[in-house]
Amino acid sequence: MADEEFDSNKTFLASVERSKQIEADIQVNPQKYRVLTGDRPTGNLHIGHYFGSLQNRVRLAKLGVPTMILIADYQVLTDHDAFDKISQNTKQLVIDYLAAGIEPGENVIIYPHSYIPECNQLMLPFMTLVSNAELSRNPTVKEEIASAGLTNVNAGMYTYPIHQACDILFCKGNVVPVGKDQLPHIELTRNIAKAFNRKFCKNREPVFPLPQALLSKTPSILGLDGSQKMSKSRGNAIFLCSTEDETAYLIKKAKTDSERVITYDPENRPEVANLLMLISLCTKEEPADIAERIGEKGSGELKKVLAEALNEELRPLRQKRAELEKNPDYIRQVLLEGVEKARAIAIKTLDEVREAMNMKI
Amino acid sequence: MADEEFDSNKTFLASVERSKQIEADIQVNPQKYRVLTGDRPTGNLHIGHYFGSLQNRVRLAKLGVPTMILIADYQVLTDHDAFDKISQNTKQLVIDYLAAGIEPGENVIIYPHSYIPECNQLMLPFMTLVSNAELSRNPTVKEEIASAGLTNVNAGMYTYPIHQACDILFCKGNVVPVGKDQLPHIELTRNIAKAFNRKFCKNREPVFPLPQALLSKTPSILGLDGSQKMSKSRGNAIFLCSTEDETAYLIKKAKTDSERVITYDPENRPEVANLLMLISLCTKEEPADIAERIGEKGSGELKKVLAEALNEELRPLRQKRAELEKNPDYIRQVLLEGVEKARAIAIKTLDEVREAMNMKI
Repeated sequence: MADEEFDSNKTFLASVERSKQIEADIQVNPQKYRVLTGDRPTGNLHIGHYFGSLQNRVRLAKLGVPTMILIADYQVLTDHDAFDKISQNTKQLVIDYLAAGIEPGENVIIYPHSYIPECNQLMLPFMTLVSNAELSRNPTVKEEIASAGLTNVNAGMYTYPIHQACDILFCKGNVVPVGKDQLPHIELTRNIAKAFNRKFCKNREPVFPLPQALLSKTPSILGLDGSQKMSKSRGNAIFLCSTEDETAYLIKKAKTDSERVITYDPENRPEVANLLMLISLCTKEEPADIAERIGEKGSGELKKVLAEALNEELRPLRQKRAELEKNPDYIRQVLLEGVEKARAIAIKTLDEVREAMNMKI
Repeated sequence: MADEEFDSNKTFLASVERSKQIEADIQVNPQKYRVLTGDRPTGNLHIGHYFGSLQNRVRLAKLGVPTMILIADYQVLTDHDAFDKISQNTKQLVIDYLAAGIEPGENVIIYPHSYIPECNQLMLPFMTLVSNAELSRNPTVKEEIASAGLTNVNAGMYTYPIHQACDILFCKGNVVPVGKDQLPHIELTRNIAKAFNRKFCKNREPVFPLPQALLSKTPSILGLDGSQKMSKSRGNAIFLCSTEDETAYLIKKAKTDSERVITYDPENRPEVANLLMLISLCTKEEPADIAERIGEKGSGELKKVLAEALNEELRPLRQKRAELEKNPDYIRQVLLEGVEKARAIAIKTLDEVREAMNMKI
């Protein structure tokens, strides 16, 4: 076990180093890369997503990096029983994306994977390249099973890292922005790509690239209740679709601590530091400077400043959001165009896969 | 364990009974049924397939039962490492089918499943409906893993019964001709269909039928080496593509026993009984009558009679085979037309599945 932890830490540090190199190269050669990223349609996006991943996606797309934004509708079912809102949540995701500044087009493709059969079919060859032993020891899956309290693991949950490999490899994605917990999945995807190329591409060009993780620089954002992570399901989030009044109200109720004077001390005062960091993300001031200015005025003032800063930051996004809400046909069209483009890529890849496997008729 | 065996035997007897009822009803209402059947493209078909399944398929198709004949190319990879001949074997299968009298057209569709992405995509929703526990206790998979000597089970092998469910359910097949060892797979397919309908079709018509096993009446044919089953991989088979001389030579070498006089005694003289039964399958005489006629003339005569009868039975098939071999374009066209028809069915079913799961965009 100690060895495994050591290995996982070594992998992490290597990934951090590699991510820096990729970031530097992306500035110069954006077209060398294809980014694969996305979300499960389980609800609206919140400010954790906004500062954590949406801004990063907008930045990469603006650099000219081809970007696939996947709406992972099938993955809702691996550990959720509810499916009644998948379609609605898919459309809400698109609205959040567009409002945040993501511009679908030649370079940026938004699509739900349930509409890309040629991507999903890759499950079949890929599953023959992964042993049950390898699936059983995936630490992230183990943790997710434990935290969801699943006593009866279904085969969809068990194999979903292989499905992620399909999502990444069908479009020959070579960069995947992820958090530390997703590194085992990227490793599995690399193993599948290697195994496929080794077994089926002896006498031809390899079909798949070996994708790299791109670890995000953004600090993770705590929930307003002081819990470890802002999350849709924990009720501790400010949604992009919240009104300004709702935002102010949620911030007013946010957990702080009993000390009157505001200081920036992430170690000992995580809740206060989190609110300061959120202000900093909006205003680009240093959190310590913000803390000094508020100082004796206490947490009431801190919350007022945050509510104002956040509502100002999100105002253009929310205006655009409201307009997009009025135009469901356009949202649908974005998805249909994304599906068309993603499918063209998938059909090409699947054809290469069939050829490599001697299955062409 | 005793309980399990009892249950499995009870299931078997129930399936025998149900198969008789289906057989009777098929004669009257052939269009009520859709048969799903097929083979893995691992090599040429032999006389075990001919008397065991091909004749049955021809019979059902002639009755007017819509029939899907699946070439399970992905299932070659679950326990085989070799993939170099999949495409070639697929075309050889089609030649065997057509030579044996199967007539592709409106009622009979021949296709490799690697060309039906919308069928394969069903893996994703179906896997969320099957628990790991259910997969782990499948007796047929256990046995296949043991007999293939697999120490490292891959996820493709582990989940292939779910893939079979996709093959059966995508076309809403409701009758599957199988042997006893396949009953657990049909049971799993029924469970998946039930679970899907129960979970996703509360407010609509069920999407899937509950398919039934159709146990074949044909006795299983032993290998020429006296081993339990005629099999491509055991080198104990007479192939449909063998020449008449090869056929006579293989029969000459067949194992019999040390008794001179030929009698029909399946219990005590299984090898001799097997050869007599093969003659009977060709000439439609009773095996006991054939044995009586040969009697004192011994095994040499028995083998001569069988070689003649079998070569005569297979002569038209082999002539047609030779003609089809000369026309690869036609074989390819049969497959492409089969793919087109199977896909149209699959696209429709997947669309219903997406709608039931609230994934429509």
